[in-house]
Amino acid sequence: MTVARDMLEASPVQIDLGLDAVAAAVDACMISAQACTSCANSSLAEDDVAAMRRSIALCDDCADICTTTLRVLSRPFESDRVVTHRMLGACVRMCSDCAEECERHGAHHRHMAICAKACRACARACGELLEAEAFQELEKLAGG
Amino acid sequence: MTVARDMLEASPVQIDLGLDAVAAAVDACMISAQACTSCANSSLAEDDVAAMRRSIALCDDCADICTTTLRVLSRPFESDRVVTHRMLGACVRMCSDCAEECERHGAHHRHMAICAKACRACARACGELLEAEAFQELEKLAGG
Amino acid sequence: MTVARDMLEASPVQIDLGLDAVAAAVDACMISAQACTSCANSSLAEDDVAAMRRSIALCDDCADICTTTLRVLSRPFESDRVVTHRMLGACVRMCSDCAEECERHGAHHRHMAICAKACRACARACGELLEAEAFQELEKLAGG
Amino acid sequence: MTVARDMLEASPVQIDLGLDAVAAAVDACMISAQACTSCANSSLAEDDVAAMRRSIALCDDCADICTTTLRVLSRPFESDRVVTHRMLGACVRMCSDCAEECERHGAHHRHMAICAKACRACARACGELLEAEAFQELEKLAGG
Repeated sequence: MTVARDMLEASPVQIDLGLDAVAAAVDACMISAQACTSCANSSLAEDDVAAMRRSIALCDDCADICTTTLRVLSRPFESDRVVTHRMLGACVRMCSDCAEECERHGAHHRHMAICAKACRACARACGELLEAEAFQELEKLAGG
Repeated sequence: MTVARDMLEASPVQIDLGLDAVAAAVDACMISAQACTSCANSSLAEDDVAAMRRSIALCDDCADICTTTLRVLSRPFESDRVVTHRMLGACVRMCSDCAEECERHGAHHRHMAICAKACRACARACGELLEAEAFQELEKLAGG
Repeated sequence: MTVARDMLEASPVQIDLGLDAVAAAVDACMISAQACTSCANSSLAEDDVAAMRRSIALCDDCADICTTTLRVLSRPFESDRVVTHRMLGACVRMCSDCAEECERHGAHHRHMAICAKACRACARACGELLEAEAFQELEKLAGG
Repeated sequence: MTVARDMLEASPVQIDLGLDAVAAAVDACMISAQACTSCANSSLAEDDVAAMRRSIALCDDCADICTTTLRVLSRPFESDRVVTHRMLGACVRMCSDCAEECERHGAHHRHMAICAKACRACARACGELLEAEAFQELEKLAGG
């Protein structure tokens, strides 16, 4: 339904990290960014807002980090692999935090359950992208 | 495929502008914001970049305005209808500009054709939302 | 201290809306966007968070709208005056709402008082820019 | 001139990374984000746009990463130190890339020289923040 894959395929730049894996991560970031934006706002409207302040704070950061990650991934021309790697690392950690916290409230608030699922999917898609062969050299260097 | 509609439905706040119309506008903004981000980057990589400088500049603004519009629409709690109306007005105009310019290059660059289509769809979805009954009072006041 | 004025002056594009007025609006948007981001987070940490939910929701929208407004103003090349006018209109209204709400809590929370002042200054700077001669024609057309 | 330091000081949350260092990084990110946004647009308007396509692409990513970094730093409540560390790492690398490329054009275009200086200052401020004692434990864990 989104056009992320079509847009990446139409780019004159070759997608070294893999067309399908990047498109999947872009889509997952879009969905997670929107879900977190909406989830934080819904939580503010709930009677038990005080119990959800941690989740709101995490959703705020998660929405911004996912949005910037999807923008960086959507710009393959002249992109720096080290920057992409670090943004993906930030995004995976952020989405995992946010998913864990939203899951705790998922039984009481459906927006939390949906948001947690979107964050988990985003952590997974960005985590899989970090496994791309094009990143292996970087990790060897950093680990060595 | 996105969760915008589910998230809005799960909000404790009633969606006065209409659940389906708001969800459609959020989805269209997400797609258009990503397409514009990608299109501007692809154009930078093309040999005829000089011919596309107007389109790149418009895509840059369009990506930001669509992103902020979808965030405002994703936060119905305590939202100000006048602000929403003005953001939608900015978004419709911006997307129409951007679509028109990208269409001019659509025959030569597939990323332009896809982006133009995404911007047209966003202009239409946000334009339809501006027709919502909840906005009619505002327009009467402004027009009177 | 910021470089907004220097950057606009160094642009090959002439700033029709007036160099000083645009630079002042960009600076005010930067300050207001950061203040609102910080204010919302501080409010989440306060014991009386439930009393501040409206202010948090307004700060969230205000931070995004100010950020997009300063980006649009920072891109004079090929910009559409109607879009700029509408973004400024959204920004003035949003900042006024946010300032009014944060002022209500200003006596109890210093972050609210500082944020309210930053939003007022931004509403004023963007409002003054809307008075630019270059916009007068637009308003005549819309009002006629 | 900005209120970042005042806002952080007024937060009920203690700033473990150091009030002055965080405020300096927030200010540097704000300035760099705006400079990059403006620089990319000015470059599009120059006759030799084709020579500056790498710089434009880097400025686009840099503006977004700086904006998200300043937002994450402006939200100390419930923030995850690992996420902050990774965002700062992405920001330092991005700003260094962007500064290096813009410096190459600094003699011919004043907007490039100003932007390069803003990016260098941001890389330095975020790099200094990465030296904060509160981060040392993390690095020991990662390095061990």
